[in-house]
Amino acid sequence: MAYNLLKGKKGIIFGALNSNSIAWKVAEKAHEEGAEIVLTNTALAIRMGELDELAQKIGAHMIPADATSVADLENLFSKTMEIFGGQIDFVLHSIGMSPNVRKKIPYDDINYDFFSKTLDISALSFHKMIQVAKKMDAIKEWGSIVALSYIAAQRTLYEYNDMADAKAVLESIARSFGYIYGREKHVRINTISQSPTPTTAGQGVKGFSALMDFTERMAPLGNASADECADYCITLFSDLTRKVTMQNLYHDGGFSSMGMSSRAMIQYNKSLECKECKENPLNHPDE
Amino acid sequence: MAYNLLKGKKGIIFGALNSNSIAWKVAEKAHEEGAEIVLTNTALAIRMGELDELAQKIGAHMIPADATSVADLENLFSKTMEIFGGQIDFVLHSIGMSPNVRKKIPYDDINYDFFSKTLDISALSFHKMIQVAKKMDAIKEWGSIVALSYIAAQRTLYEYNDMADAKAVLESIARSFGYIYGREKHVRINTISQSPTPTTAGQGVKGFSALMDFTERMAPLGNASADECADYCITLFSDLTRKVTMQNLYHDGGFSSMGMSSRAMIQYNKSLECKECKENPLNHPDE
Amino acid sequence: MAYNLLKGKKGIIFGALNSNSIAWKVAEKAHEEGAEIVLTNTALAIRMGELDELAQKIGAHMIPADATSVADLENLFSKTMEIFGGQIDFVLHSIGMSPNVRKKIPYDDINYDFFSKTLDISALSFHKMIQVAKKMDAIKEWGSIVALSYIAAQRTLYEYNDMADAKAVLESIARSFGYIYGREKHVRINTISQSPTPTTAGQGVKGFSALMDFTERMAPLGNASADECADYCITLFSDLTRKVTMQNLYHDGGFSSMGMSSRAMIQYNKSLECKECKENPLNHPDE
Amino acid sequence: MAYNLLKGKKGIIFGALNSNSIAWKVAEKAHEEGAEIVLTNTALAIRMGELDELAQKIGAHMIPADATSVADLENLFSKTMEIFGGQIDFVLHSIGMSPNVRKKIPYDDINYDFFSKTLDISALSFHKMIQVAKKMDAIKEWGSIVALSYIAAQRTLYEYNDMADAKAVLESIARSFGYIYGREKHVRINTISQSPTPTTAGQGVKGFSALMDFTERMAPLGNASADECADYCITLFSDLTRKVTMQNLYHDGGFSSMGMSSRAMIQYNKSLECKECKENPLNHPDE
Repeated sequence: MAYNLLKGKKGIIFGALNSNSIAWKVAEKAHEEGAEIVLTNTALAIRMGELDELAQKIGAHMIPADATSVADLENLFSKTMEIFGGQIDFVLHSIGMSPNVRKKIPYDDINYDFFSKTLDISALSFHKMIQVAKKMDAIKEWGSIVALSYIAAQRTLYEYNDMADAKAVLESIARSFGYIYGREKHVRINTISQSPTPTTAGQGVKGFSALMDFTERMAPLGNASADECADYCITLFSDLTRKVTMQNLYHDGGFSSMGMSSRAMIQYNKSLECKECKENPLNHPDE
Repeated sequence: MAYNLLKGKKGIIFGALNSNSIAWKVAEKAHEEGAEIVLTNTALAIRMGELDELAQKIGAHMIPADATSVADLENLFSKTMEIFGGQIDFVLHSIGMSPNVRKKIPYDDINYDFFSKTLDISALSFHKMIQVAKKMDAIKEWGSIVALSYIAAQRTLYEYNDMADAKAVLESIARSFGYIYGREKHVRINTISQSPTPTTAGQGVKGFSALMDFTERMAPLGNASADECADYCITLFSDLTRKVTMQNLYHDGGFSSMGMSSRAMIQYNKSLECKECKENPLNHPDE
Repeated sequence: MAYNLLKGKKGIIFGALNSNSIAWKVAEKAHEEGAEIVLTNTALAIRMGELDELAQKIGAHMIPADATSVADLENLFSKTMEIFGGQIDFVLHSIGMSPNVRKKIPYDDINYDFFSKTLDISALSFHKMIQVAKKMDAIKEWGSIVALSYIAAQRTLYEYNDMADAKAVLESIARSFGYIYGREKHVRINTISQSPTPTTAGQGVKGFSALMDFTERMAPLGNASADECADYCITLFSDLTRKVTMQNLYHDGGFSSMGMSSRAMIQYNKSLECKECKENPLNHPDE
Repeated sequence: MAYNLLKGKKGIIFGALNSNSIAWKVAEKAHEEGAEIVLTNTALAIRMGELDELAQKIGAHMIPADATSVADLENLFSKTMEIFGGQIDFVLHSIGMSPNVRKKIPYDDINYDFFSKTLDISALSFHKMIQVAKKMDAIKEWGSIVALSYIAAQRTLYEYNDMADAKAVLESIARSFGYIYGREKHVRINTISQSPTPTTAGQGVKGFSALMDFTERMAPLGNASADECADYCITLFSDLTRKVTMQNLYHDGGFSSMGMSSRAMIQYNKSLECKECKENPLNHPDE
C-alpha cells in the first residue's frame, strides 16, 4: 500500500547490493511512494551485484561512485542534478566495511591501516557525501539525510570490532553536520540504529545467527526486517518529520530499551539447567 | 496535503483543550489522514475549552473522562469501541499538570500530596489508560500509543519543578508497558519529547518566553511547532513505524543534541559585553 | 586497607538490614575510613534485622525513622545533628520496596495504591529526606548525597515491575534536587546504578539467579559485589569527587555498556544447539 | 591533604605540557598519593613545554613518545617497565589535537587528511597505547586506564569541529577495548568528560571564554577545574573503583544534566531585554 508520501521527491540511495540490502528495499519503497531515485555504489559492487535489475525495475539511474572519493562524489551529485533537473530531496547512506572484520583480525591486534580504512569507508564517507552536497548546494531546503547505524555504537558486541568505533563516528558526524546543514539550509541529518539484519554484510559477522536469535527474543516486537526499515526511512524522508534532526533513532522492535526479557531468559536458563549443556563447556557460537 | 496514512484507522486523543493544544492539532491532522477520532478530556476541561468546536469540525465523538480514574477510563474505552464498532488503532496521551507548579511552590519546599497528584495526573494516568485498554483488549494488534514528553525528563530546567520527575516516570512507563504490550499484542508505546510549545500549559511556566528564545537559537531547525508535532505523531500512528517501540523520540529541531550553537552564544555574549547589562545584575526572566 | 578518606566526616546511612545489605557494607567501610555514622531504618526493620550488631561494631547511633514520614525525618536529622554536634557530610539512601512485586501482581494488572506506595517508599522518600535536610540546613557545604539505583530505570527487565518506574523517579529527583542543592549549598547528589546484588531485597525478585548468571557473563569484570559498591560510595563521599553531581553512575563491571559478550553468547548458544534443550520448551527461570 | 590512595602504584601520564595541563595536575596529585610516575609527551612538546620542571618536582622519569607511533609506544612501555621493575597500574591519556581547528578550517569545508590526523592523534592513539600495553602485558591485573573527553562527543558545540567526532571515537574505543581488556586481565577503561578547562588546548577554541561563562552559570557547582579533575582521576586509579569500566563519567559540576539554570537564563535574558543589546545585532563571541 502506497501513500504518495514522496511524490515529486528525488533521492540518492548509496549502498544497495542485492535484494537483501536495506538500501535496495528503501529504493523500492521510495519509488512506490512516488520518488525518483539515483542508485549508487562502487563500480565493483555494481558489476558483482544485481543493481541493474533494481534500476530497471524502478526506472532509476545508476551512477558508480566510490563514497570515499571526493571526486567521485562530485561527479555523482553533479550528474544526479542533471538527471533530476535540479536539487535532491533525500539521501540514504548505507555503507560499511571493515577490513579487520573481513580478515578476522581481533580488536586487540588490529591493523591500523585497516582501522583507518574502516573509518574512511564506513564513516568519513558520510561526511564527504554531505560536504560535497553542501558545497554544490545539491540538497533542497528541508531535505533529509539518513545513514544506517547499529547499537554497537553505544554497546559493545564481541566480534563487531572496529565497526563499533566507525558507527560511533558516523553518528557523531550526523550530529556535527546536522547542526551546520540545519542552521544554514534546514537540511536534517539522522541515523537509524537498525536491528541486526541478515544482509550480505550482516551475515558475515561471526555468531550472527545466535545473536539474531537472542535479539529476536529480547525485543518485544522481534527484530525489525529490512522491509520495515525501508518503511521507517520513508517517514524520515517525508515532510512529516521536518523537525527531527541530529538524532540516532532505534528501529529494533524495542531491543535497545530492554535489560532482559522473559523469553530470552527462559532460553538462556535452559543452558544453565540442562544436563547436556552443563557437560558441554566449549560450544562456541556459530563454530 | 494528505496521504491517507491513517485511512480506516481509529484513535482516541486525550488532552485537547483549545486550538493551541498539540492534541488538538493531532486530532485535526489524524482526521485529514483518514482516521476516525474520539476526543476525551475531563468534564471540566470540556466545559471550559473549545473541544465542541473541534469535535464538530472533524466529526468526532467526545467522551469525558478523568484519566486518573480507572472507572472513567473503562467507560471511555467501552463507549469508544461501541462507537467504532471494534478495536482502536492508536492513542495519544497529552496530559500533564502539577499543582506545585500552579501554586508556585518551589521544588525544595514541595507539597507531597501535590507531588503525588502531579505524578498521578501526568504519569500514572498513562499507565491506567494502557492497563484498562489492555484488559479490555481495546487496542488492535500492531496498534500505536504515544505520549507527549519533555526534555526535562533528562535535563533539569529551573522552574519545571516536579513535572520533570513526572515526565521521567511517564517515559519509564512507556518502556515498562511497551515491553509487555509489545510481546503480547505487538502494540508499540513511545514518547515524543517535544520542543517547548506555547500551549496553554506551556505558557504557564515562568520564564517561558526567554526559554523559547534560547531553544529557538540553539536548535539548528528552530523549535518544533504544535503543527509539526502533529505531523510527527501521524507517522508514529501509521503502519510505517511498526517496529519502533519503547523509545523517547526528540522532536525539537535538534535542540537535544546541541551543546552550544553560534546563534545562542552570540546572543548570550551580548549580555556579557554590553555596558547596560553589566550594570543591571537583577534582571529576572519574565518578571 | 584504609586511607582515612572520610576522616572527621559524619554521615547518615539509610536502609541497612543485615550483613548482605549494601548499606551495611557502606557503614562498615565509612567507619573504617574515619567517619562517624548514624544508622537508620524503620522501627520494624530495626527489630527484625541485625542492625544492633552493626551499630555496636562501628560505634554508631541508631535512630528509627520511616523515610516516607516527614516528621520522622525531621526527628532523625535533628537528633543526628545533636549527636554529631553539627552538620552532616554525607547521606546514603538505600531504600526500595514494591508491594506489587511482593504480592506478585503483574505490571499489567497493577494495583495503583501499591504503585503509589512503591513510588513513595522507593523514590519520594529520597526527595523528603533531602527537603527536610535542606530546610534544617543539616548538610555541610560540599556535602554528598548518594542513592542506590538499578539499570531498570533505563532498560526494562521482566518481573522488575513498578520498581523500574520508581528508580526512574529516584534518578530524576537526584537531578532535580541536585541542581537546587548544588547551586545553593554546593551539595552534590548522585545515584549509583549497581549490578544485581544478592541482598535480601534482590533475592526476592523472580528469576534472580539466572539473571545474575547472565550479567556476570556479560560484564567483562563480572558483577560488582556489595563490598565493591561500598568502596565506590566512599569515593563519592570523599572530597575527591566534589564536582560530580546530578549523575547516574554505573557500577556494574561494564554490563551497562555491553551489547553481547562472547561468554554470554556461548552460554546462550548452548540452549540453541543442545538436543535436550530443544525438546524442553517450557523451562521457566527459577521456577 | 593526601591519603596514600595510590601507595605503591605506578603510572604513565600522557599529555602534560605545562602547569595548566590537566595531565600535569594528575601527575602531581598521583605523586602526592604515593604513586611513581613516568611522564610522556612528544619530543617537541617536551622541548617546548616545562615538563622537565614537573619531572624534577615529583621525581618522575620522562620518556618522549609520539602516541600515534606504535614503535614509540613499544619503546615507552618497555622502558617504563624497566624503570618500574614491573607492570604498570594506571595510565592517563590526555591528548587531543585537530589541524582543522588550528587552521580554522570550518567543518563543512574540512580537509580530510587533517580529519584523519585529528582522529589518529586524538583517538586512535588511545587504541594504540592500549594495544601495545596489552601485547606487552604491561598493565597489572585490575589496572586502570583513563582518557579525558568532552561533552562534544554527545552534543554539538559550534567551532568544536572534528574534535567532536574524535571524542566520540575515543569514548567508543574505551568501551570496545574495555570489554576485551576487562574480560582478559580485569583492566578497566573509562573516559572522564570534563568541564571546559582553560588549558593551552582549551583556550585555543574560538569563543572559549563566553562558553566558560555559560557553563559556569549552568552548572550548579560551577565548572570543574583541572585540580578537581586530577582529584577525580585519583579515585579512578585507586582500588576503590575496580568495577567501574566502559563508562564515560561527567566531571562538570552538573552541566551535562542541565537543561537551563536560573543563573544562565537571567544572564541570557539581559541580552533580550536591554536596549543596547537590541540595537547591536552582530556582537560575535570573542571577536
